[in-house]
Amino acid sequence: MVTLKDIAGRLGIATSTVSKCLNNADDISDETKQLVYDTALEMGYKIKRRKNNIGMSERRVCILIDNMEYENHDQFGFDLILGFKTSATTRNWQVDIIPINLNASYTLANNYDSFMLQNQYSGAFLIGFSMHNDYFTQIRKTKIPTVLFDNHINDNMKVGYVATDCYDGIHHAIEHLKELGHKKIAFLNGTKSTMISEERLKAFIQIMDELNLTVYDDLMENGYYVPNSAKYHVPHFLSAGATAIVCASDLIASDVINEVTRHGYSVPDDISVIGFDDLPFSANLTPPLTTIRQDRLSLGKSALMLLDGLINDLPISRMILHAKLVERNSTAHVKTKLI
Amino acid sequence: MVTLKDIAGRLGIATSTVSKCLNNADDISDETKQLVYDTALEMGYKIKRRKNNIGMSERRVCILIDNMEYENHDQFGFDLILGFKTSATTRNWQVDIIPINLNASYTLANNYDSFMLQNQYSGAFLIGFSMHNDYFTQIRKTKIPTVLFDNHINDNMKVGYVATDCYDGIHHAIEHLKELGHKKIAFLNGTKSTMISEERLKAFIQIMDELNLTVYDDLMENGYYVPNSAKYHVPHFLSAGATAIVCASDLIASDVINEVTRHGYSVPDDISVIGFDDLPFSANLTPPLTTIRQDRLSLGKSALMLLDGLINDLPISRMILHAKLVERNSTAHVKTKLI
Repeated sequence: MVTLKDIAGRLGIATSTVSKCLNNADDISDETKQLVYDTALEMGYKIKRRKNNIGMSERRVCILIDNMEYENHDQFGFDLILGFKTSATTRNWQVDIIPINLNASYTLANNYDSFMLQNQYSGAFLIGFSMHNDYFTQIRKTKIPTVLFDNHINDNMKVGYVATDCYDGIHHAIEHLKELGHKKIAFLNGTKSTMISEERLKAFIQIMDELNLTVYDDLMENGYYVPNSAKYHVPHFLSAGATAIVCASDLIASDVINEVTRHGYSVPDDISVIGFDDLPFSANLTPPLTTIRQDRLSLGKSALMLLDGLINDLPISRMILHAKLVERNSTAHVKTKLI
Repeated sequence: MVTLKDIAGRLGIATSTVSKCLNNADDISDETKQLVYDTALEMGYKIKRRKNNIGMSERRVCILIDNMEYENHDQFGFDLILGFKTSATTRNWQVDIIPINLNASYTLANNYDSFMLQNQYSGAFLIGFSMHNDYFTQIRKTKIPTVLFDNHINDNMKVGYVATDCYDGIHHAIEHLKELGHKKIAFLNGTKSTMISEERLKAFIQIMDELNLTVYDDLMENGYYVPNSAKYHVPHFLSAGATAIVCASDLIASDVINEVTRHGYSVPDDISVIGFDDLPFSANLTPPLTTIRQDRLSLGKSALMLLDGLINDLPISRMILHAKLVERNSTAHVKTKLI
C-alpha cells in the first residue's frame, strides 16, 4: 500500500505537502499538485475511505454525466442514478453528481485522473459519454476504477461496463413478431457508430438469420436517440412493405407511431412497433408500447457493485443484465392483405 | 413476501407442517414435502437468513461440483472455490461444498429446486457441469438464484454466469505471436460442443481474421481438457508447418510441449506454445509456459457477488473478467527457416 510518506520520499518533499495537494489546498501551486498527482498514480496510490464531519468512515465516488437526460423520472438517466445512489447509501458511500458538457469538460480538470485524486474520488460511473468524447482518450489509460454504461474499453483492468443484453432483448422482440406472423421487419437503430448501435445492428441481423427471416438492407436505418428521426425513414419502410418496426429507443418508437399514423396507417392493425428501454411514458402512449425493458434501477445498482469490485481489485470487464420484452398493444397479428 | 402461513393457507395444512417440510423433518412423508416445495416455489417463496447455533443470522449457499478437480492448489477449482468462500465469509454466509458425479446426482434429490429448499440454500454456484448434464434441464427453469461458471442459460432471470473474457485473452495471445513474426498458428481447443469451446473457436477465427492472419481449417482441432490429446493432433500441426500452437488449457499445453519435444523439435526455438488458465504448475514447466491467465480467485469472488445480486433480485445475466497474457519462455521469435 503506497502511503503519503512514500510519495513524499520519492519527490523529496514534506509529507504534509503531499497531504495538502491531495486535499487540493489553496496554498500549493498547480504545478506541484500535478507533480504529486502524477507521482501518486504512477506509484499505485489508492484513495482511502476518510472520516466525514460526524466521524464516520466514508468513500467518495462520482457520477459524470454527459449527453444524457436524468432530471425527471421519465428520462433514462433518472433511475440509473437512483439505483446507483440507493446501493451507495447502504455502503455509506457519498456520491457526487457531476453533469459535464463537451465545451466545459476541460474546465473540470485537464486530466481525468488528477481530477479524481484532487477530489478524493475512489472511482466514477460515467454515463452518456460517446466514444469520441475527449475524456475517452484519457480513460483508456486511467488508473482510477471507472464504470461505463453502454461503452467498452478493452485492455484496462481498472475499467468495466454495465449494459443490458441487447442480443437477448432483440431476440425476444423478433421472436414475438415472428409468432404474430411478421416477416418483413424493419429496424430503426440509434445514433450511428456508437458501440451500442453497432452491437444492436449485429444482433438484429444475426437473430433475423437464426429465425430464418430475410434481412433487407433497405429496412435497417440509423435514427438518433432523439425525436424526429422517424420522418426520414418511416415513409420508405412503409412503401417497401414492412409490417413491423423495431426501434432502438422508446423515444424513436413514439415518433415512429406518430409518423405511421400521419401516413394514414394504424398501429398495431397495419404496422406493429416495438421500442427499447421501457421508459415510464411508454405505457401511456397510444397505443401503449410493446418494448424491450432495460431495468435501469438494476443497471445503476449493478454499476455500483461493479465499481466496488474494481476498487477491491477484481478485474471485472463487464456486467450484463437480462433483457425482458414487455408486451403491450403496439404489436398485433400481421394483416394478411398487407404482405 | 410469501410466508409459511401463506403456503399453509393455500394447501389447507398447518403452518407447523410447512415449517417441518422446509426443515426436512423425518416425520413428514416425501409426498407432502414435495407438494410443499412445489407450492412454495410456485408462490415465489424465498429462503431467508436463519439464526445459527450461536445466534447469528446467516445465509446458506452451496457450491455444486461436477467434473472439475479442486482438491489441491494446482487444480483449476481450488482458487475458484477459495475466492467464493473468502467473499462468503466476509458476508457471514455459510458455504457447503457438494461434489456430484453423474451417476450419483439423482440420489441427491430428484429435483434441483426441491433439494435447494430442503437444505435451506438461498442459492448455488455450479462448477464443471457440462451442458448435457441432466441437472441443466432443471436449471433452465429453476426459481433458485444460481450462478454458473463458463456455461450460459438464457431466458431465466434467476440464472447468471461468470467467465473470463476469452475474446480478449485469445486476442492478447495471437497479437503476441504476430509480434514475434508467427503466421501459421494452430489452435488446440478443449472438449467439443461445450459453450466455452465454441466461443473460443469463434474468437480464434475472428481475431486471426482481424489481425490479417490466414485461418487454416486443418490447424484447428478439438482436444480434451485432459492430458494425452496432443499426440493425435501435434504431428499433423508440425507437418503442416505451424510455428505456434495456442492451447485451450495449461494441461493441453503441457502435453503439447512434451509431444513437440518427442518429435525432436524445441519449444520455443522451433515451435511457440501458449496455454490458457495460468495454473500454478505452468510457471514450473520446461520451458515456463506463456499463458492466458484466468484469475480464479477473482472469478470465485465475482460468482459470490453475482449470486448476492440474484438473491437481491438484480437480473444479472453475466459477469465477465478481463483476461491477461502472462509472458514466460514458451514463446519466441519465429525461426525464419521453418516458415
